[in-house]
Amino acid sequence: MTQPAPAQAALPSHSGVTDLYFDFLCPYAWRGLELADVLRREHGLKFRLRHFSLVQGNHAENPDRKYPTWWLTDQVAGQGSEYQAGSLNAFLAGQAAMRQTEDAAWAFTLELLRARHAAPEKADLANDGTMRAAAEGTLDTARFEADFADQDGLRAALRDDLQASASLGVFGTPTYHLPGGDIAYFRFANLVTEPGAALDLWTLYTKVLSDGALIETIKRAK
Amino acid sequence: MTQPAPAQAALPSHSGVTDLYFDFLCPYAWRGLELADVLRREHGLKFRLRHFSLVQGNHAENPDRKYPTWWLTDQVAGQGSEYQAGSLNAFLAGQAAMRQTEDAAWAFTLELLRARHAAPEKADLANDGTMRAAAEGTLDTARFEADFADQDGLRAALRDDLQASASLGVFGTPTYHLPGGDIAYFRFANLVTEPGAALDLWTLYTKVLSDGALIETIKRAK
Repeated sequence: MTQPAPAQAALPSHSGVTDLYFDFLCPYAWRGLELADVLRREHGLKFRLRHFSLVQGNHAENPDRKYPTWWLTDQVAGQGSEYQAGSLNAFLAGQAAMRQTEDAAWAFTLELLRARHAAPEKADLANDGTMRAAAEGTLDTARFEADFADQDGLRAALRDDLQASASLGVFGTPTYHLPGGDIAYFRFANLVTEPGAALDLWTLYTKVLSDGALIETIKRAK
Repeated sequence: MTQPAPAQAALPSHSGVTDLYFDFLCPYAWRGLELADVLRREHGLKFRLRHFSLVQGNHAENPDRKYPTWWLTDQVAGQGSEYQAGSLNAFLAGQAAMRQTEDAAWAFTLELLRARHAAPEKADLANDGTMRAAAEGTLDTARFEADFADQDGLRAALRDDLQASASLGVFGTPTYHLPGGDIAYFRFANLVTEPGAALDLWTLYTKVLSDGALIETIKRAK
């Protein structure tokens, strides 16, 4: 089960940029992206959107998360469980959005996460109509249609994210990979959008990861 | 599977006192107790030693950790795996030590944890000789011998701790149950015994639990 890790995962994130791994299926990822969006808009922090698949990470055929044998990117569109089909479709639409401006990609991604997790009725991610609705008002829709049709190219880009997250041992979302190399899942229940509170929360999270005690886990009992 | 929780678990910890749940088997619990010992000796914080059994918590017959059917306290002494026999023996010795002064109980508990986790060779917790060696220099040994012989009384006291931790949903050690009601597993890799660093680390941990975002988990990917 030992295979060489890809070069991408062996290097720290780009200087100054935090990689944010998320899955559209995850309500905590939605909160994590709202937090990061405030930090980038109000405080100038840099984040890169990256995809991690919970369906792939938890798949029975992937006992070692670091070396998957079952890949979401190898699946036929629309097949499998609602979660499998929906997350693949949303990831590919998200990859298409990332071909436009950074602000547009964030707006689309947040729109889709809100439609799934903040709306009264959970949006169906397997439905292309959900993707088009999220593109309205956030993207150049003609360009989105053209890019979203390039399924092979989008799958290749998604595969890069899935390979990177697997190699890093990502197991849940949101997970932030800091410029210094620290990487940790960060789950919180309450939406934080006030700029001061967002910066305080981010400072607290990063302080936990940089403490000399080498904190590995803080997890509430329930 | 719903049974009424015991009154003990429904109430917050005693005012101002943090309950520290630990298992002698766990190297992270050792570090957690060293931290708490510095905090109580150097900074006047109050902790109460409480036992949580990893063998019981992870037992296949206890799919719902909150409502165990398999209890460590129902097992015959010396039987089962090395971990089962050793942890039961250590817990009972620890309960005997807690009948002496608070400082003596802490000294004995730390001595046993160090013999298990800091010594070049892991102490055998199933061996009563290990218990007697830890009692030397930390306890009134004659009283310890008499108390350690009261296996029924010690098992009843241990059962109270196991019931309380089960009801609270404790799943690993060390877990701290703060006076305000917050309760979380706290795992860190590096021993912290310098008083200033210990207080900083504790402040950071408690700040994570009191943040308005309601942080549920911070966990490193590996």
